[in-house]
Amino acid sequence: MNVQPKPGTLVPETVTTGPLTGSQKVYYSPQGHPELRIPFREIKLTDPNEPSVRVYDASGPYTETDARIDLAKGLPLIREAWLSKREGLETYSGRAVKPEDNGDVSADKLVSPCPANRQPRRGLDGKLVTQYEFARAGIITEEMIYVAHRENLGREQMLEGAEARVADGESFGASVPAFVTPEFVRDEIARGRAIIPCNINHPELEPMIIGRNFLVKVNANIGNSAVTSSVAEEVEKMVWSTRWGADTVMDLSTGRNIHNIRDWILRNSPVPIGTVPMYQALEKVGGDPIKLTWEIFRDTLIEQAEQGVDYFTIHAGVRLAYVPLTAKRVTGIVSRGGSIMARWCLAHHKESFLYTHFDEICDIMRKYDVSFSLGDGLRPGSIADANDRAQFAELETLGELTKIAWEKGCQVMIEGPGHVPIHKIKINMEKQLKECHEAPFYTLGPLTTDIAPGYDHITSGIGAAMIGWFGCAMLCYVTPKEHLGLPDRDDVKVGVITYRIAAHAGDLAKGHPAAQLRDDALSRARFDFRWEDQFNLGLDPDTARCYHDETLPKDAHKVAHFCSMCGPKFCSMKITQDLRVEAQALLDNEKAVLDGMAEKSKEFLEGGAALYVKS
Amino acid sequence: MNVQPKPGTLVPETVTTGPLTGSQKVYYSPQGHPELRIPFREIKLTDPNEPSVRVYDASGPYTETDARIDLAKGLPLIREAWLSKREGLETYSGRAVKPEDNGDVSADKLVSPCPANRQPRRGLDGKLVTQYEFARAGIITEEMIYVAHRENLGREQMLEGAEARVADGESFGASVPAFVTPEFVRDEIARGRAIIPCNINHPELEPMIIGRNFLVKVNANIGNSAVTSSVAEEVEKMVWSTRWGADTVMDLSTGRNIHNIRDWILRNSPVPIGTVPMYQALEKVGGDPIKLTWEIFRDTLIEQAEQGVDYFTIHAGVRLAYVPLTAKRVTGIVSRGGSIMARWCLAHHKESFLYTHFDEICDIMRKYDVSFSLGDGLRPGSIADANDRAQFAELETLGELTKIAWEKGCQVMIEGPGHVPIHKIKINMEKQLKECHEAPFYTLGPLTTDIAPGYDHITSGIGAAMIGWFGCAMLCYVTPKEHLGLPDRDDVKVGVITYRIAAHAGDLAKGHPAAQLRDDALSRARFDFRWEDQFNLGLDPDTARCYHDETLPKDAHKVAHFCSMCGPKFCSMKITQDLRVEAQALLDNEKAVLDGMAEKSKEFLEGGAALYVKS
Repeated sequence: MNVQPKPGTLVPETVTTGPLTGSQKVYYSPQGHPELRIPFREIKLTDPNEPSVRVYDASGPYTETDARIDLAKGLPLIREAWLSKREGLETYSGRAVKPEDNGDVSADKLVSPCPANRQPRRGLDGKLVTQYEFARAGIITEEMIYVAHRENLGREQMLEGAEARVADGESFGASVPAFVTPEFVRDEIARGRAIIPCNINHPELEPMIIGRNFLVKVNANIGNSAVTSSVAEEVEKMVWSTRWGADTVMDLSTGRNIHNIRDWILRNSPVPIGTVPMYQALEKVGGDPIKLTWEIFRDTLIEQAEQGVDYFTIHAGVRLAYVPLTAKRVTGIVSRGGSIMARWCLAHHKESFLYTHFDEICDIMRKYDVSFSLGDGLRPGSIADANDRAQFAELETLGELTKIAWEKGCQVMIEGPGHVPIHKIKINMEKQLKECHEAPFYTLGPLTTDIAPGYDHITSGIGAAMIGWFGCAMLCYVTPKEHLGLPDRDDVKVGVITYRIAAHAGDLAKGHPAAQLRDDALSRARFDFRWEDQFNLGLDPDTARCYHDETLPKDAHKVAHFCSMCGPKFCSMKITQDLRVEAQALLDNEKAVLDGMAEKSKEFLEGGAALYVKS
Repeated sequence: MNVQPKPGTLVPETVTTGPLTGSQKVYYSPQGHPELRIPFREIKLTDPNEPSVRVYDASGPYTETDARIDLAKGLPLIREAWLSKREGLETYSGRAVKPEDNGDVSADKLVSPCPANRQPRRGLDGKLVTQYEFARAGIITEEMIYVAHRENLGREQMLEGAEARVADGESFGASVPAFVTPEFVRDEIARGRAIIPCNINHPELEPMIIGRNFLVKVNANIGNSAVTSSVAEEVEKMVWSTRWGADTVMDLSTGRNIHNIRDWILRNSPVPIGTVPMYQALEKVGGDPIKLTWEIFRDTLIEQAEQGVDYFTIHAGVRLAYVPLTAKRVTGIVSRGGSIMARWCLAHHKESFLYTHFDEICDIMRKYDVSFSLGDGLRPGSIADANDRAQFAELETLGELTKIAWEKGCQVMIEGPGHVPIHKIKINMEKQLKECHEAPFYTLGPLTTDIAPGYDHITSGIGAAMIGWFGCAMLCYVTPKEHLGLPDRDDVKVGVITYRIAAHAGDLAKGHPAAQLRDDALSRARFDFRWEDQFNLGLDPDTARCYHDETLPKDAHKVAHFCSMCGPKFCSMKITQDLRVEAQALLDNEKAVLDGMAEKSKEFLEGGAALYVKS
């Protein structure tokens, strides 16, 4: 059942559900933890000798075979039992929703609140609240166990299987383990090298981990804008982007109804939701950066933390003194949050309130275990501006702030660029690791050239794959519409899939122990002309099938030993398969063959005894 | 006038003509060479303070404003005056066309020969014929002068302009010069580090150079197949792919009429045309590799050399002894030419006739100055098979053959993989440079993962950008239909543009002295909200404009200081521009400002004296 929401409806009624073609959702409970249900997607293959391929799956219950989704009720509260046991948390009557939270929208245009809303929780002073605090205290949480098993995908198979193989990647000093244990997860979080973004007010979340020693993750941005988009589309965009592989979703909505839309998204999101609270704060002051105040910003943080937002982008590194460093840039300041704060700083001739109030921000975020995504407000917006002093000055400040946030008990990741030519990417990763004490890096692309508007998923996919390899923990997607307009449904899908390619290419190159299992399964299917398996093992079975069917639509062609690209006579795989038969015939009648052979051929046959005989 | 050929017509009647949106074709005659007309594309900008941007242009006369194309007459013979003066060449009555050249097609289905056909030329023994021979003799040909000026694009501007800048790339030992002289070109060709593929029977060619110290080039494959495609489409595909930036085109047609179709393509092609003669040879023996003979292959080489094919892929490195090395591969042999020769070798228990007759192949190719593209018949077809012994054994043989071909006076480039994970790409380039004595490398992608059928332009664009950076001279494109079917018009365009991105990202990263000019011009247009300029400076103005217009279609929006992505309030560039105004106001009233400033702000103002004031 694939259903698009009716355009223009104010309350989301339905979203896309059902498994991807050829797949089914499976849940796995690790030994000793029957209460944990770790989700995977299993791709069944047509060859009985080929095992099903299990892949990481961030799509939530929406892709279950008989998914029953009621957006008004929200998703099951899988973390509720864990959270309710924690001593450091209290339930309280949260902040009352104010008219400005929804942009002072008139009653007739107000999106109704999500009925699944609950009273919020918050953490108590002096108690363990955040995953970082638990980790530092040596305590393994349910979230840590969950992500350990989630990350282990396929590794047992690699370690136990007959084809056990040592991965031969180059990881640039990362410490990707052969097997992920909950203790390894705890240790990585305690060191600040990984985060599990998981607001205590987001019990619907299926926990996931972001860190250099784990699978490379992908973020998709959604959100309306002042110009287009309807409410109903926003929840569907979250569902749609996770369907194709987004690991987290940032809701960058602005304008009216954003509080209530955010409720609907959070109550129905299996993935961490990130936001840039500054956007909503700016709405509350009528869009004029100069009118921003710490009080309005603080109130917005609490508002969103109570709703369950899992990470906040905070542009606290845009210091007053750095703004002049952007003066000679070709593209000035291209981060929205960065430009807003720069404007405020200049207008008031004051240091940024995000910087001066950073301690208080930490205290709020700790209470709800909202992770920091320290924003790169001065990221380069063009090749010309890459790796300049403004960018790196801010990065150094983000490093200082990381230490403060850790001292306050918070989880932290660091945002990165932007537009960077290929040869300047590695230094970004190296400098980030050094300045920010190995806190996870989360980059936008980077775009490796400015000259292809309309194709910036590709200009940036190149940079994303490389920085993923070098150690970036999460890649923020870019769609084909970047720089030009608001992405639609197709753009979101293309963006997510491009970034899944980049993330996977990075995992392969880092030497992730089991990443190649899927490549190998697909390549075997390709060599065996199992077309359906080839489609279904791909990131986008529907598009692959559709492309194939454009020229060879018949069912019989799904087992044909050729495709329209080369035709039957010129298919190298077909010819190679014929070779197998011939080689076997040779071996079956070895003497006759040897008699007829020249010296050169003997050498071949000796070397080729196992030629195309399955070992 | 953008016209698609009528589907199903057997003789091409018309093709796509006219300039790209916002561009015009210009020709440049270097000082002292009024007879040379070097083509460029000039993008005019709306800001009178911004100079036009001149870009490399391989699209030939088709993109002239009033292009008058008569396919039956062919393109102007721009090399004829140069060739007719050369003492080493003779005109002769060429080989008669045989029925099997066109696949024994029946008379009613025969594509008529191109009326522009001429008597062929060939080189004489002991005389200078090839660009390599001229270069070794210390002689600078017209082709060398032509490509030198063609490559110099923008460099004068960079060197003379106020913004002269030393490129800061990392070129891994390449020797990209600040300025390309004809003598530099000659020297690079003499060293075997570059080639100008230019058959003496292709006088319509606009010469171009392929080498590590020049701009990274892109090849597009065209061709029918046994299953689909019509004749008329083939010429249009060449025109279409060069329109979007293909520097060379490989005609991989098989089946009927291929001789005559090749005539039409060559007589109308401004770019070098490459082929795999083995494909036609196989047609002549009814598609059975075992029936191939040296004599049939030799005859095919002469047939195609007389037509004017500029480079031949010759899979002479697939030696009998290497075939067993592919036995345990996941995807065996995936090169069509490679699998055909492997089949022949096994069936006959003999060394490949391409290897044993390599001297004679050289003698033929030298006579017409057909460049070698030494084929990688054993390239890996999956991540699992990358960099294996079969692949590298063949590469070592290609190195031996390179030396032989050079001794025979031929120009040589080397083909490379294929499917290679990111961390194994660099060793491919390093090993190729070492084993093949710095002959130019020409790779297919490489694809950096197997798991995205339908998106292999992207999986491979990542690898292509990287290997272009590392030193690969030409990138063979991959379309979204790779592994699935025959690309259509849209696929070809997307493939070419993806590869132009990869090539340009590589040029930027290598530190090409002027590559960034276009990025900078586009980024300035972006920052200034000159939307039309931004579209037109991009690789695909039409798609960029179309994406923008989906949400903001009005003409007024083309100067709007925002786009639909962020809307008017949240546009960082808009906010940053406002900053400029504010900073100027500050400076205008310095005293009043200083009075109101805290110590911190003073520091800012001192540092920020030039803030957003155009220098």
